[in-house]
Amino acid sequence: MRILGIDPGSHITGYGIIDKQGNYLRHVAHGEIKSKKESLFSAMLVSIYQQLSEVIAQTEPQAIALENIFYGKNVRSLIKQAQVRGVAIFSGADKGIPVFEYSPLEIKKAVVGYGRAEKRQVQVMVKAILKLPELPPADAADALASAICHANFFKGKSI
Amino acid sequence: MRILGIDPGSHITGYGIIDKQGNYLRHVAHGEIKSKKESLFSAMLVSIYQQLSEVIAQTEPQAIALENIFYGKNVRSLIKQAQVRGVAIFSGADKGIPVFEYSPLEIKKAVVGYGRAEKRQVQVMVKAILKLPELPPADAADALASAICHANFFKGKSI
Repeated sequence: MRILGIDPGSHITGYGIIDKQGNYLRHVAHGEIKSKKESLFSAMLVSIYQQLSEVIAQTEPQAIALENIFYGKNVRSLIKQAQVRGVAIFSGADKGIPVFEYSPLEIKKAVVGYGRAEKRQVQVMVKAILKLPELPPADAADALASAICHANFFKGKSI
Repeated sequence: MRILGIDPGSHITGYGIIDKQGNYLRHVAHGEIKSKKESLFSAMLVSIYQQLSEVIAQTEPQAIALENIFYGKNVRSLIKQAQVRGVAIFSGADKGIPVFEYSPLEIKKAVVGYGRAEKRQVQVMVKAILKLPELPPADAADALASAICHANFFKGKSI
């Protein structure tokens, strides 16, 4: 089972791919899609779609896992993030890949063991679980964490 | 100049196309994209993309106009609407069509003459301006109003 985790953001969208083989989780790839400062938001959406589509074509995931949107931020960046998230969901759904979502609590529990973990702890645990040579960048770590959560539970909300 | 207005919603996405010929505005088409109740949100995003792409292919607009997202609603539906809006923006941007946004105030001023107009007044004025045989449905009227606003101003924020 190959899982793509996506962490859509208003500035950086992280992604991470893992394989689940029995109880073993194998790291496949991860990365961050950054928007150029000068480019329009609409151009960023196109770039996110294209880059995610390329990742999907290269890695052929069977499921996509996303974190629920985090409410505790200002409305402007919430809306930006939600618009990116819509395109991220679309980029998988238009290729027939099922999309699942998990709460931040579920993801942190799955990766760190408790729901109130800090961003840094998520990075450290993702590195340990996937035996990475170094800490993944924060947004890619969150994306990998979503994928790990799906690998361990398979019962996220299908969206 | 052919303009496509889009009014993305968490349940219904309205669209409307007008032509600007000199000072004359001509109605081309309008409609509403509704999501099936039983379908997943991700499937709805795909359906919205496909239907907007079809409208774009059939009518070949040169610009897309959208209303800014309205903040005064609950966060859950705000996020849903923003996700749909992201895909709506993307569906034009990936075909190279410039996308503009206007505030609700600008749109109502352009169509009704003052910024505090009711939904119903927008429908009535859109019908009058475009010489429609009957009132367009509310979401399509909002989409047409965005297009009319762009036709009259051309100086929305490029997004």
